[in-house]
Amino acid sequence: MSLRLGVIGTGAIGQDHIRRITRKTHGARVVALNDIARAQAQAFAERERLDARVVETAGELIAAPDVDAVLVTSWGPSHEELVLASIAAGKPVFCEKPLATTAAGARRIVDAEMQGGRRLVQVGFMRRYDAGYRALKQTVDDGTIGAALMVHCAHRNPAVPEAYVGDMAITDTFIHEIDTLRWLLDDDYVSAQVIEPRRTRNAHAGLHDPIVVLLETRKGIRIDCEVFVACRFGYDIRCQIVGETGAADLPDPPSVALRSAGRASTAIQMDWKQRFVDAYDLELQEWITSTAAGAVSGPTAWDGYFAAVTADACIAARQTRRIVPIEIGARPRFYG
Amino acid sequence: MSLRLGVIGTGAIGQDHIRRITRKTHGARVVALNDIARAQAQAFAERERLDARVVETAGELIAAPDVDAVLVTSWGPSHEELVLASIAAGKPVFCEKPLATTAAGARRIVDAEMQGGRRLVQVGFMRRYDAGYRALKQTVDDGTIGAALMVHCAHRNPAVPEAYVGDMAITDTFIHEIDTLRWLLDDDYVSAQVIEPRRTRNAHAGLHDPIVVLLETRKGIRIDCEVFVACRFGYDIRCQIVGETGAADLPDPPSVALRSAGRASTAIQMDWKQRFVDAYDLELQEWITSTAAGAVSGPTAWDGYFAAVTADACIAARQTRRIVPIEIGARPRFYG
Amino acid sequence: MSLRLGVIGTGAIGQDHIRRITRKTHGARVVALNDIARAQAQAFAERERLDARVVETAGELIAAPDVDAVLVTSWGPSHEELVLASIAAGKPVFCEKPLATTAAGARRIVDAEMQGGRRLVQVGFMRRYDAGYRALKQTVDDGTIGAALMVHCAHRNPAVPEAYVGDMAITDTFIHEIDTLRWLLDDDYVSAQVIEPRRTRNAHAGLHDPIVVLLETRKGIRIDCEVFVACRFGYDIRCQIVGETGAADLPDPPSVALRSAGRASTAIQMDWKQRFVDAYDLELQEWITSTAAGAVSGPTAWDGYFAAVTADACIAARQTRRIVPIEIGARPRFYG
Amino acid sequence: MSLRLGVIGTGAIGQDHIRRITRKTHGARVVALNDIARAQAQAFAERERLDARVVETAGELIAAPDVDAVLVTSWGPSHEELVLASIAAGKPVFCEKPLATTAAGARRIVDAEMQGGRRLVQVGFMRRYDAGYRALKQTVDDGTIGAALMVHCAHRNPAVPEAYVGDMAITDTFIHEIDTLRWLLDDDYVSAQVIEPRRTRNAHAGLHDPIVVLLETRKGIRIDCEVFVACRFGYDIRCQIVGETGAADLPDPPSVALRSAGRASTAIQMDWKQRFVDAYDLELQEWITSTAAGAVSGPTAWDGYFAAVTADACIAARQTRRIVPIEIGARPRFYG
Repeated sequence: MSLRLGVIGTGAIGQDHIRRITRKTHGARVVALNDIARAQAQAFAERERLDARVVETAGELIAAPDVDAVLVTSWGPSHEELVLASIAAGKPVFCEKPLATTAAGARRIVDAEMQGGRRLVQVGFMRRYDAGYRALKQTVDDGTIGAALMVHCAHRNPAVPEAYVGDMAITDTFIHEIDTLRWLLDDDYVSAQVIEPRRTRNAHAGLHDPIVVLLETRKGIRIDCEVFVACRFGYDIRCQIVGETGAADLPDPPSVALRSAGRASTAIQMDWKQRFVDAYDLELQEWITSTAAGAVSGPTAWDGYFAAVTADACIAARQTRRIVPIEIGARPRFYG
Repeated sequence: MSLRLGVIGTGAIGQDHIRRITRKTHGARVVALNDIARAQAQAFAERERLDARVVETAGELIAAPDVDAVLVTSWGPSHEELVLASIAAGKPVFCEKPLATTAAGARRIVDAEMQGGRRLVQVGFMRRYDAGYRALKQTVDDGTIGAALMVHCAHRNPAVPEAYVGDMAITDTFIHEIDTLRWLLDDDYVSAQVIEPRRTRNAHAGLHDPIVVLLETRKGIRIDCEVFVACRFGYDIRCQIVGETGAADLPDPPSVALRSAGRASTAIQMDWKQRFVDAYDLELQEWITSTAAGAVSGPTAWDGYFAAVTADACIAARQTRRIVPIEIGARPRFYG
Repeated sequence: MSLRLGVIGTGAIGQDHIRRITRKTHGARVVALNDIARAQAQAFAERERLDARVVETAGELIAAPDVDAVLVTSWGPSHEELVLASIAAGKPVFCEKPLATTAAGARRIVDAEMQGGRRLVQVGFMRRYDAGYRALKQTVDDGTIGAALMVHCAHRNPAVPEAYVGDMAITDTFIHEIDTLRWLLDDDYVSAQVIEPRRTRNAHAGLHDPIVVLLETRKGIRIDCEVFVACRFGYDIRCQIVGETGAADLPDPPSVALRSAGRASTAIQMDWKQRFVDAYDLELQEWITSTAAGAVSGPTAWDGYFAAVTADACIAARQTRRIVPIEIGARPRFYG
Repeated sequence: MSLRLGVIGTGAIGQDHIRRITRKTHGARVVALNDIARAQAQAFAERERLDARVVETAGELIAAPDVDAVLVTSWGPSHEELVLASIAAGKPVFCEKPLATTAAGARRIVDAEMQGGRRLVQVGFMRRYDAGYRALKQTVDDGTIGAALMVHCAHRNPAVPEAYVGDMAITDTFIHEIDTLRWLLDDDYVSAQVIEPRRTRNAHAGLHDPIVVLLETRKGIRIDCEVFVACRFGYDIRCQIVGETGAADLPDPPSVALRSAGRASTAIQMDWKQRFVDAYDLELQEWITSTAAGAVSGPTAWDGYFAAVTADACIAARQTRRIVPIEIGARPRFYG
């Protein structure tokens, strides 16, 4: 039996996910759509020849008896309300990043979900589904490098649009490392620090770029991550875990090795969309499969909440130029 | 509308393909199965909860009105007859390697297909669907290394079973390079030579391993390929194309880079099944999509025939220790 | 005309340098030796068939009319006095690390040298002579990666002896990065911070290992350096400079690339002595050549002093867990 | 005591060697020079402030009582006569490639040397002194890859001058692999074959480029070597030895790894002179050291003779397009 999905938000990422469900994944179909721009949703449904109706309101979609589960791919500020409504309706919900725009909002979701007594929420941190990160986690988990002690990362983009300003290096970019490294290390953060190196002349006026973020975990593992979004040279994601007896690096995407004009070279991707495209596919497939089986196997509301709290601490650390503690109670038993 | 498939042969590769169609690809479903071991087919269908009937004979399956296209994954010696029957029935047919066990048999298929007036046959050369080979072909095609002049290859397996004997290094192993390089270079072969280096002590008694195969193309490109199936150290597929201004290498599969015990290392796969698993998925998906659209986009019967003739020449070259010409008429216009 | 050298201290490093002068470099010869263990010096001179006399005291050696220049390779605590004596005698002096055991001592040397009105002192920071670091500096200097913004380093040893304790990770190990990075970046430091990650179980009882040192330069460049001296897996020196348009890495020493037992690998050196052996040769050769020409071309007393002040700041930063400013006046014009 | 050398031929390579002896190596000095262009030799001696006299004839130089050993760096066609004269005079002689311009000439040297009863001749095959090749040989010799079965090589130059024509790809270029691989494998050749791939448009009119040379050894090891002297992209020397349990590659020269403009790259040298510069230094140093000790430790007259016979076989194989046997008696005991 196919899982019947309702999708709220048919912008770029919503359309991508719907196409994924139609063409790549198995076990689910989209039966209902909603978007504040109704006409756009309608047009998309027709263009894609979806066998799905466009419903008037998000609430109506969530309530619809033929909608087994909800995909929230709308504007960020709407996420909290939509996820809470899904929980209230007792329906599994996949919510794109961020789970909520504030830590308090994410906490409300955690509380509501626990009150409901059943895990329903998955947050869209897709890097956990990347084959490279999974291989790296396997290397750590099977003891190949001994206990992890340090992590050195870089998150580099060739350029960002003018709309990318302020602390988006943390909330939009580094947020991926925040979630991925907790999962990789099976650990939580206890403090954050942010360093602002010399500014590149290639960033637009509204941006101090790059930054270096330092995190400390409960086990004492120390993480340093360069976040450099106007680096010009490529979309370059690096992650080295150093353990007691060895070091392991996230693999680069494969590339034809070229010998030409005095250089031996491989390509660095320039477009971030290519980098994790397979991870997005797998993320949705595993969500569909586990939802159909009545479970949540991916990043939970607690993970989304922890990420929000950590991002807030990073922002505070940046503003104060101090080491900011990350204080969050122990993980509730509910989240295993 | 979903393409309705009949599958002849439900051994290992047949089962793999059926699972692929059920779980990975879109646009087709299996409606009928046939195998000389009927009970096995029946058991498999039940285990997989396939909504497909098991039919008594291959002929019945090919003739069935609800079978739009045929997948031949039976024992090699049966391929020729089954493909000819599919052509006679006017049905698209995907045939696993080999198209026929002799070049003459492959030629009969080519002739039958041309006589029928419509391209119906695709041969299962899956490397053309590997992302790495496609990137390599793109590099050649877009002129990055200038006109191709030489190709250096290696096809290495850690070990082969006792049943792997005689000229299987050519007919089962090197056959992949035969097809892939013709496609990569967009060229045909004109001669073959085989060299037998010093024999490894790690091959079983029935096998002279390794060998080196040399091919010459119509354009004068020279190919050398090491075929070493008891190399012990890994399943290692290498392909470097040297052009007038550069050289390009097939990428290795991505791997965590490890620094440990005085070595910086990456993994070489040991199991050939992993190496091209994505290529198999894509091969079937593209076959389904193009078949539904009424066309053959993959390796044709002509390609299967050319591969068979080339393999025969390699075998003759090995026996005679001479350079053996590959004589085959120009590609019929029918095969574009 | 050959430069006539007097060597004070004929322990391991002194013997290495003497053999270098005898067998590798050109333009100098050792004419006098001194060591507090006179018999050992005498025995070494005989074993090596040196045409050099062993003199009773260091002062006598420095004063000897046939000694054109002095090599100080004695015990660290003696360096300051011997270098000051050489300056007083108006003789060029090459002093192994450290220039003095305290920053104040190094400052006294700087003051004495300036007072003398002529640059006479070179400190033994050999990494500036390593071909890899020189190529890296060239890459930075010629603008290939734009202005430098960040540096990511690691200084890893497989193991250290029991005698290696306390802050030797800074004074004996990281001291190399302190000097090399100032030279690479043509910049000075303004602050230091030290982080203590989770401790490896492979370090001996007296040692907290690894540490991470963070330095900030006058231009705002931010440096992070992992110092991990019981890493087990190799002597692994890494340095990546990230600039406005690219990143450049210190090359690893060349190694046969091996494909074996499921791994593609290269060697990481286990013995630090091999790593910079060519740099030591070149260091001495350039010192001899420039000394013969009446100049100092290598690391100056000022560089030695700056390194000592920076090391002190790192130690204070480690103890206080705070960011410690590095305050040192502007470079005197005397040191160009 | 310093070895007193006489150098015949003060062209480019002669001058390089003399500078090496003066500035890099230890244990020898040049006491006499000869060149058919006497004035040029005189000018060079003055420019370099050599403490050496220019003598009228090569014969006079060889005979001079203060000349302990001879360096032949004159025009190729003069080598045979000069080496024979040195042997007649009982003096050690280092002769640049080729030992003689014909195999017969090289044989005459072998015979003369054996008749003299003492090994005196070393041929200038410098690759045996390259650190990379030595590490590769070590890997083979210590059994890391099991018994060698195949060797895949490439010898690539970006371009060659107009004067480079005919079979110089064999006599000037591939000659290096001929000697190096015999030494690496500790084996002799028994046959040669040459293949002419499609010609690059970047070679000048007088040149068919590239070629592929195939050699077979006494043990049955099979070698393929691409020789491509107008490859445009770099001076690129590759050598992979495939053994029963692994494969080992000659290391590339170290290079700063750059990430820039969408590419991760390292440099390929463009100028062949850089590639083996350290090997030339070591070659002369070891020759000086062993000559002073009364022995020949490097490539012998027999090696030079074997190389000449092999090159002749390659040329014949190219002309006849056949596999040409290499017939040469067993190595005389004299050459151990």
